[in-house]
Amino acid sequence: MSDQSIRLSVDAVVFGYEEGKTSVLLIKRKFNPFKGEWAIPGGFVKEKESLEMAVERELFEETGVKINYLEQLYTFGSPTRDPRGRVISVSYFGLVKPKAFKILASTDAEEVKWFSIENLPKLSFDHETILKFAIKRLQGKIVYEPIGFELLEEKFPFSDLEKLYTTLLGRDIDRRNFRKKIIKLNVLDELEEKISKGSGRPASLFKFNKKRYFQLKKEGIVFEI
Amino acid sequence: MSDQSIRLSVDAVVFGYEEGKTSVLLIKRKFNPFKGEWAIPGGFVKEKESLEMAVERELFEETGVKINYLEQLYTFGSPTRDPRGRVISVSYFGLVKPKAFKILASTDAEEVKWFSIENLPKLSFDHETILKFAIKRLQGKIVYEPIGFELLEEKFPFSDLEKLYTTLLGRDIDRRNFRKKIIKLNVLDELEEKISKGSGRPASLFKFNKKRYFQLKKEGIVFEI
Repeated sequence: MSDQSIRLSVDAVVFGYEEGKTSVLLIKRKFNPFKGEWAIPGGFVKEKESLEMAVERELFEETGVKINYLEQLYTFGSPTRDPRGRVISVSYFGLVKPKAFKILASTDAEEVKWFSIENLPKLSFDHETILKFAIKRLQGKIVYEPIGFELLEEKFPFSDLEKLYTTLLGRDIDRRNFRKKIIKLNVLDELEEKISKGSGRPASLFKFNKKRYFQLKKEGIVFEI
Repeated sequence: MSDQSIRLSVDAVVFGYEEGKTSVLLIKRKFNPFKGEWAIPGGFVKEKESLEMAVERELFEETGVKINYLEQLYTFGSPTRDPRGRVISVSYFGLVKPKAFKILASTDAEEVKWFSIENLPKLSFDHETILKFAIKRLQGKIVYEPIGFELLEEKFPFSDLEKLYTTLLGRDIDRRNFRKKIIKLNVLDELEEKISKGSGRPASLFKFNKKRYFQLKKEGIVFEI
């Protein structure tokens, strides 16, 4: 029906957030092409598995990280992106708390490491393009979907949520406006408990209202920051 | 490097907007599988062409419609979506004014037709899923990117823009709020000219401010409707 010789791969951009730092999970390639260089985890799709199964399997095999909520990002298909021939990459992305995962290099990966997105190594293939695309999507996403539930401590001062947003966005935000908007979303429960930090007044602790959080995640939010 | 036997296709969901109606461009398949049934235009990627070139070529071959600004929608890759074997579809979408195009069925298409999205025929493969996904994406998109420039007349009463949004969203909007928000975006120039419709007061005519429109298209807007 078609005499293509095109191969299909999947790649997983896994972002980590921890204490004001955004990182990304990369592997050092064990084999050619680009042997010894850093890359986004990923690999070829098996004939009987779905794209989602493939990306979860490849990520787990190469890094030891098991995530079942990666989102499809984009499909990269330039005819020259892989020196071996035509390889299409369906890329996925996700955002996790690095310390919740144990990393372990295996199969095609010689090493696996979290890199700060401020300090990235040279990347193989078109993986720099894919990573930049993922960063932009992540920054776009957090203004129409609440984030933080799996990333912050269970109870946290409001400043932690603020820091999460400024870190991921890579820029300052209008803090008063941001607070007003988050409060209006009704996604946080303010606790009686307070926390003392430095010399200022003790700050209230908050908790995500789980039901409301996942409801908004489904419905979408629209808020300008 | 991998013993896959996976084939790669592209599909183009082309929406049309005209006078309060949303339609979609479909073809009747000339060959099996699903011979004689309706489908989204598309086909196999050639080995040396980019995905974008492939989708534009397939759309043009099957329907006579030439569009060079289709956007990637999503990649559908279920192992069972095509009875011929494993075929991945990278889908694209766009929104045009139907009367700006002449349609002409050719190659794999026996017939080509605009269908109202309120009244769709049974679709081949998983094309109903793809189309639903595209409708959702289109509705999501118009709240962070201005639309209308290529869809409305050059000069139009505000009610035409309102109708465009309610039609594409498939629901009513808060009209006063909508007007306030659009005006605040500064994307319209109000003209001296007025138009008389029915028995009401003559309505002002507007024009898109081209520079501002394409600037916002690039930067993105955020507005709740």
